[in-house]
Amino acid sequence: MTVNIELDYNPKQMAIREKVFNTIISCFKRHGAENIDTPVFELKETLTGKYGEDSKLIYDLKDQGGELLSLRYDLTVPFARYLAMNKVTNIKRYHIAKVYRRDNPAMTRGRYREFYQCDFDIAGQYDPMIPDAECLKIVHEILSELELGDFRIKVNDRRILDGMFAVCGVPDDKFRTICSTVDKLDKMSWEDVRSEMVKEKGLSEEAADQIGQYVSLQGGMDLAERLLQDAKMSQSKQACAGLTDMKQLFSYLQLFQVTDKVVFDLSLARGLDYYTGVIYEAILTQTGPVPVAAAQNGAGEKAEEGVSVGSVAGGGRYDGLVGMFDPKGRKVPCVGVSIGIERVFSIMEQKAEASAEKVRTTETQVMVASAQKNLLEERLRLTAELWNAGIKAEVMYKKNPKLLSQLQHCEDSGIPLVAILGEQELKDGVVKLRTVHSREEIDVSRAKLVEEIKRRTSDV
Amino acid sequence: MTVNIELDYNPKQMAIREKVFNTIISCFKRHGAENIDTPVFELKETLTGKYGEDSKLIYDLKDQGGELLSLRYDLTVPFARYLAMNKVTNIKRYHIAKVYRRDNPAMTRGRYREFYQCDFDIAGQYDPMIPDAECLKIVHEILSELELGDFRIKVNDRRILDGMFAVCGVPDDKFRTICSTVDKLDKMSWEDVRSEMVKEKGLSEEAADQIGQYVSLQGGMDLAERLLQDAKMSQSKQACAGLTDMKQLFSYLQLFQVTDKVVFDLSLARGLDYYTGVIYEAILTQTGPVPVAAAQNGAGEKAEEGVSVGSVAGGGRYDGLVGMFDPKGRKVPCVGVSIGIERVFSIMEQKAEASAEKVRTTETQVMVASAQKNLLEERLRLTAELWNAGIKAEVMYKKNPKLLSQLQHCEDSGIPLVAILGEQELKDGVVKLRTVHSREEIDVSRAKLVEEIKRRTSDV
Repeated sequence: MTVNIELDYNPKQMAIREKVFNTIISCFKRHGAENIDTPVFELKETLTGKYGEDSKLIYDLKDQGGELLSLRYDLTVPFARYLAMNKVTNIKRYHIAKVYRRDNPAMTRGRYREFYQCDFDIAGQYDPMIPDAECLKIVHEILSELELGDFRIKVNDRRILDGMFAVCGVPDDKFRTICSTVDKLDKMSWEDVRSEMVKEKGLSEEAADQIGQYVSLQGGMDLAERLLQDAKMSQSKQACAGLTDMKQLFSYLQLFQVTDKVVFDLSLARGLDYYTGVIYEAILTQTGPVPVAAAQNGAGEKAEEGVSVGSVAGGGRYDGLVGMFDPKGRKVPCVGVSIGIERVFSIMEQKAEASAEKVRTTETQVMVASAQKNLLEERLRLTAELWNAGIKAEVMYKKNPKLLSQLQHCEDSGIPLVAILGEQELKDGVVKLRTVHSREEIDVSRAKLVEEIKRRTSDV
Repeated sequence: MTVNIELDYNPKQMAIREKVFNTIISCFKRHGAENIDTPVFELKETLTGKYGEDSKLIYDLKDQGGELLSLRYDLTVPFARYLAMNKVTNIKRYHIAKVYRRDNPAMTRGRYREFYQCDFDIAGQYDPMIPDAECLKIVHEILSELELGDFRIKVNDRRILDGMFAVCGVPDDKFRTICSTVDKLDKMSWEDVRSEMVKEKGLSEEAADQIGQYVSLQGGMDLAERLLQDAKMSQSKQACAGLTDMKQLFSYLQLFQVTDKVVFDLSLARGLDYYTGVIYEAILTQTGPVPVAAAQNGAGEKAEEGVSVGSVAGGGRYDGLVGMFDPKGRKVPCVGVSIGIERVFSIMEQKAEASAEKVRTTETQVMVASAQKNLLEERLRLTAELWNAGIKAEVMYKKNPKLLSQLQHCEDSGIPLVAILGEQELKDGVVKLRTVHSREEIDVSRAKLVEEIKRRTSDV
């Protein structure tokens, strides 16, 4: 039953997930995004030819005589299909949903992997680099708010890469495969990457060495300006277009106050076929228990998230994808970002385990309890009063529970208050309100109880 | 591409769904529920033999040489499997997720249906009927808060049904099939139900007529008391146990103040095999455009939700299901309720369409605009300031948008405020804050802008 063991999420995991989702969704909404949903099934032909070498991980469903269907591999291709089918030409949307990949099908005989993706995209014909800058601002906001530690956002552009390949003497038909090799620079040394280019992919040593000089470069707007003056680079129209846009992007990033974390990095390539312009990837830079642990399952997550070791977000511009689904080929330019949310979850889970603070799995404000026997009906009546007033309340489903076991449940699940009923309290029209943490008890009149509970739990 | 057309949800639908989910999740949390998640795939054997006649709608996946997998049919069986696997003996949890059924496989060659289920369950050995009463209280709260119109919650008990069948002379091996026929009383006349019992299922006319007398009965605690005195019913131990618990249930429902909507109805049967005690079903009783429209797609939704026409929630007690997954057969008593959320969505969508009020698909509080050219940088700078202060803000991705098109966007998407920048405002250190609805404009200093926006949108 390993399939299920692997994928069930218990209440503690769900509580952490909910917190992460809330942070991310708040950010998306702050930026005016709408929400859409698409089915987990797409026509097989919709997914064909969109993912490059990763296409082998797509899970096809059984042929039942109807349409051939696959489980969605990501949320970007379904989004593009949605835009084309519904003739939507302008939208800023987020989509959080599960996607499915075969986990190394050769090794595991068709086992699935199921995981969340968390995407924000802006579709529409706009002035250059404004939506692109907003996507980077969003990554900056989310990673800052999640407090995962220090991070960097690497930025590059497919046009700069292609221009660089051209001026370095890479034959046109080798652009994509050389790009895939460059993409490995975050996990492999330059020597190994160079060797793969020359020995496996048949590139000349001269071309490889020229590429090597460029991909070691990192900087900001200054680097884009320098490369625009570069004797070789400036020969490529494509590279110049990309570099001019990169300068523009950095000027907007300055206005958004996020240049502290953003680096123009010529070694960033990203594997997916559909990118046409700016690409980016955010990585955690902190060394210590958290990123080390995250890197441990990095090999598995490379395939999972389409991002490299340490990567927690990635995306880019894909101006051609929607047109592939439109009968007349009408294009809708798009740019977007995907948060590597499963990586974020596992970091947050590790942080929670390392922390002394307990993760609450409920939001219960008060437990309705009694110290004496035969007060079940009174407990239920009070509990219903609290529910009707919007208070989050629990009551034990026993006729005569021990006070100790009622208090123990509060300790275990972090319930901050106990409303204790007894014969005397009922006679006096009060409730003994106990603060679990301090064990302090005060009598509160029934009429003021709701107000008092709200006051004491207003920061919960 | 019909598969996808049918199942995409646009931003307006998603906004309505989010509102419904928020209401339901708030209620579940108010009752102290935890959240879990399970994968969409279950072992085929996990689902086998749990759903009675509906099992033919389970969607099996392709045999890839590994485990045989099926898509989950509901959330109850995976929950029971989760409890047994993790040896959980006490939990109150909710689970909101998509389930999958084949849409009449004979007709549509294996087409899927994908839809949400929304379940709340209480597992554990407790004093009788307390958790059962809480489930009914939850249905009452949710249906009241969603304002779907008047409703009734029918209650019955499998033990009362089985006892009734026994004393009416139904042979033991016909209990389940006669139960399925009784379940059709909400859509068929008694004459047709009687005819199916006698002609198709071979029941004697005398037995059928005796059943007919009982299933016409409706009432409350009084009816349970009366039946406990009934000469025939009182001969069945099972029926007496069910009737005694029914009395107890009504006494708790009185404390919870929900007896106005709850009816003990002997014709309620419910189709699923796994119920062992109390069963219930909530129906909308209002006549008018809303329920008529809901009933129109009722035939399809019968299979979808496992509930009958007009039904918006259902559930019951299933004390044996967890034990079926435990190697030693250890039982964990459970009771739960499933909200027929797709039905609720379609009613809410119809209400939204009938209403003059527009459904907002974003939560944007303010649009940062300019009346003059060349102010893109100033707009972006102010927008970032607002984002950083937690304000939901949008800005047009154009260098020089017309003021009219910026205002039009606010009208279209319901953005209540516009922060307008101009040369004069920049010089004076102010922003012109315009209320879209009233067209009123006031100058607000940059330092006070965030506060002023929060004040004006605090009810949004």
